[in-house]
Amino acid sequence: MKIDLEQIKFNENGLIPAIVQDHETKEVLILAYMNEESIKMTIKLRQAVFWSRSRSEIWHKGATSGDYLNIKSIALDCDLDAILLLVEMVGDAACHNGTSSCFIDENNNELRAII
Amino acid sequence: MKIDLEQIKFNENGLIPAIVQDHETKEVLILAYMNEESIKMTIKLRQAVFWSRSRSEIWHKGATSGDYLNIKSIALDCDLDAILLLVEMVGDAACHNGTSSCFIDENNNELRAII
Repeated sequence: MKIDLEQIKFNENGLIPAIVQDHETKEVLILAYMNEESIKMTIKLRQAVFWSRSRSEIWHKGATSGDYLNIKSIALDCDLDAILLLVEMVGDAACHNGTSSCFIDENNNELRAII
Repeated sequence: MKIDLEQIKFNENGLIPAIVQDHETKEVLILAYMNEESIKMTIKLRQAVFWSRSRSEIWHKGATSGDYLNIKSIALDCDLDAILLLVEMVGDAACHNGTSSCFIDENNNELRAII
């Protein structure tokens, strides 16, 4: 079922959370945010483009690091308020701290475990 | 690295997004939200407890359906503003629409594909 961008339920800041998952390993890499413009750019470029909440600007992942995230699929959930991106990592680091995932450390341990 | 709940960066509504992933299949099941109370209940019960934004109440997943999500691990990302829950599904449906995941339909196709 294909959907139109107009159907997406953005939050009060015009953003929607996007879960980024490696299409092969299934590892969850990062949780980022997209606005309508970044979704359109992602579709056009076939590379992940987010909205940086800290810098308040469009964030083409990999534009400075080379660690692009090539898009394999984009899907919305049943409530149309969350996105799942399946990606192919171009480099080794999807996370800005240099690890593949923002949820694990360099030894593949959970970065910040609660339990 | 163990962290304290006080370190968690909740958003302006006192919530943090929680990615729920099956610990075996690695399938992303749902994106839900937690507040501090639901995190404490999750730790205590070892079952996923969220904050329902639509009902504005604590939501112990499975309390009515029996489809509990048993907790395998809880980890925060590097920015301390997103949670990854690894879970074991007790029933077949993690999503309220009856499918295992809120991102796929009953035929394991993406529910609402953009591309």
